[in-house]
Formats: sequence, structure tokens, C-alpha cells
Amino acid sequence: MRTEAEHAARMAKKKVAQDRLVASRTGEKGLVIVHTGKGKGKTTAALGMVVRAIGHGMRVGVIQFVKGAMTTGEAAVFAHFPNVEFKPMGEGFTWDTQDRARDIAVARAAWEEVKRMLADDSYDMVVADELNIVLRYDYLPLDEVLDAIAVKPAMTHFVVTGRNAPDALIAAADLVTEMEQVKHPFREQGIKAQKGVEF
Amino acid sequence: MRTEAEHAARMAKKKVAQDRLVASRTGEKGLVIVHTGKGKGKTTAALGMVVRAIGHGMRVGVIQFVKGAMTTGEAAVFAHFPNVEFKPMGEGFTWDTQDRARDIAVARAAWEEVKRMLADDSYDMVVADELNIVLRYDYLPLDEVLDAIAVKPAMTHFVVTGRNAPDALIAAADLVTEMEQVKHPFREQGIKAQKGVEF
Repeated sequence: MRTEAEHAARMAKKKVAQDRLVASRTGEKGLVIVHTGKGKGKTTAALGMVVRAIGHGMRVGVIQFVKGAMTTGEAAVFAHFPNVEFKPMGEGFTWDTQDRARDIAVARAAWEEVKRMLADDSYDMVVADELNIVLRYDYLPLDEVLDAIAVKPAMTHFVVTGRNAPDALIAAADLVTEMEQVKHPFREQGIKAQKGVEF
Repeated sequence: MRTEAEHAARMAKKKVAQDRLVASRTGEKGLVIVHTGKGKGKTTAALGMVVRAIGHGMRVGVIQFVKGAMTTGEAAVFAHFPNVEFKPMGEGFTWDTQDRARDIAVARAAWEEVKRMLADDSYDMVVADELNIVLRYDYLPLDEVLDAIAVKPAMTHFVVTGRNAPDALIAAADLVTEMEQVKHPFREQGIKAQKGVEF
């Protein structure tokens, strides 16, 4: 049986928790955002966030782990804005078992650039496009990525894209969206990749 | 039992179908693209496609059916490019049963602008942002949208966003992605909408 004092203490505790929740709703923090899944729109939605951020005058760094995921269309737009750095660093991957040492070196170079940007609080948003692919191939230790997230500046947004996001990355993320493919013209109708849509 | 002539006819037919498939794989066409689902990234990925398209010098029209879905961040970027028209037309919705006649008029005005752009083949891409919401409320007849899709210029990309895409629209689309919410900080952690991410 609960005493009146116990009841009052419970109510007070509940009130504190509620107040904290209300206060936190007005809070801002740099978000860890993951776009994963087999559908389209993972990189494209990251690109949309980059556009919003540069429109607000925020400083943005975009590192592309797989060549061609972001390409000529957006590069032409980014070129107008000094507050975004776009670095395609996926050149030279051989994938699979062809030249693993080389692939690890390519992934490492791109990751070092992401780490540098993430550690520099003058960046408001850092995008590691297709990082999940590199993690999937074990070209980079997942722990290094989790460590970088743990120590990143509080207000920096970190956006990671690519299918097969590791569970531990999803656990560490604030906002995770899975893009699910419902219909795809390139498979179902044999239509080739289109300018303005795919690249 | 099949005769040799029947067999040869079947094989010839199969070959024709295969050739047609291979030929179509190199084909280009304007795509009807739908971003739906409860997760984030529907409008953001459309925005990413707009950026790609304007980077390629394509002419793009963006009609926003719900105020605030696309906002200041992207508008500041679009302002640099004469080949994109961005029209927020969702001002004045009352939603639900508050003033249905007014809401229908707001939706109608936005849709007429989409129809005008879709009928004009100088537009390479037309985005009807959050059109699905308006269809969901029956502010516009779905048949009108399907009719406009049926007669649009062959090379125009038409992008529709919003949760609860109608089945008939999905059937008419070439590329459909469902954005599924895996984790959302604003609900789960009480974090407010962030500059560069949400707007």
C-alpha cells in the first residue's frame, strides 16, 4: 500500500519528467540522420537537405564514397555557393575481391576527410554519401564511425546514406528513414537512368 | 502436341519481345515519380531532383500544395536560377471541415498551375509537392490528375509527393518510393524541427 508521501513523490517525479519533455521539445541539436533501404531517394533526399542548409548560409561538407552517386547536376548548382564543399572521393574502387587493399585505402581517404569535417565545428552539416556501402564491405571499422559520432560537435548534423545501414549506426542515429522501392521503371520497364532524376 | 511451325513461331515471338526489351532499355521518357509513405524525405528527395534538373539547365516548375513543405532554405537557392519557378500555393487551407469550399478553391488554383505547366512542353520537370494530401481530402478529383498524366508531353518528368498516394496514382506512376519512418527524433526525443533538415 502506498503512503501519501510516496504518492506525492511519484507525482512530483512525473511532473519533472513532463516538464523536461516539454522543455526538450524546444531544443535544438545536431542530428545524426540515416537514409537507408533499397528504394531510390537516399542520396537525393540528402542532397535536398544540403540545398536547404546552403540556402540558410550554413557551412556544408559533402563527401561521396561511391563515384557517381552525386554527380554533374548537383555539382553545377553547388558551384554557385561558397559555403558547400563537394568532394567525390569514390574514384578507384575495385569492389569485392579484386583489390581489397586498394579499396580500403580509397575508403580510408574519404573517411579521413569526413572525420576532419566532423571534428571542425565550423561545419554545420556533413554528408557521408554511401558510407553504408563501404561499411557493408568492411572497408572501414564501424567502431571508428560510431566513435566519430560520439564526439562530434553538438550542433553538427551528420547525414549518412546507403542501403544496409548497420544496426549499431541506426541505434546511434536520431532520424532514420528507410526508402522502400515500390515501383522502379529501370527494372520493370527497362527505361534507362534519366537526367534530372538519377543524375 | 506442338508442331515444328508452332514452335518456330513461338521462338520468333519470344525473340521479338526480347529485342523490344533490349531496345527499350536504352529508351528515355518523362517519368511519373511518386514519393509517399509516412517517413521523412518525400519532399526533400523531390527537392534533390529539382536541384539535379536545374544543374542540367532543365526548366523546372515546383508547385507547393501545402505551405511550409518547401521553404526558405531552398527558396534562397532557387532564387539564383532562372530556370526554376517555385510557387508556394498552399496559403489559406483550413483543412478538415472548417471551410471546405475555400480549401477546394485553394487546391484548385494550385492544380490549375500544375496543369498549365504539365501541358507546356517547355517544362522538363514539374513537381506537385504534397498533391497526395489534397487528393486524400478529396479537394481535387483524382481522375483529373490521371487525365493530366495521360496527356502530358512524353519527355516531361512529373513528381508527386505526399503520404497516402492513391492506388490509381501508383498504378499510373513509373517510379514509386515509399519513405518509411524507422526513427524520428521529433517524436521520440522531443527535438524541434531543425534548420537545414526540416526547412
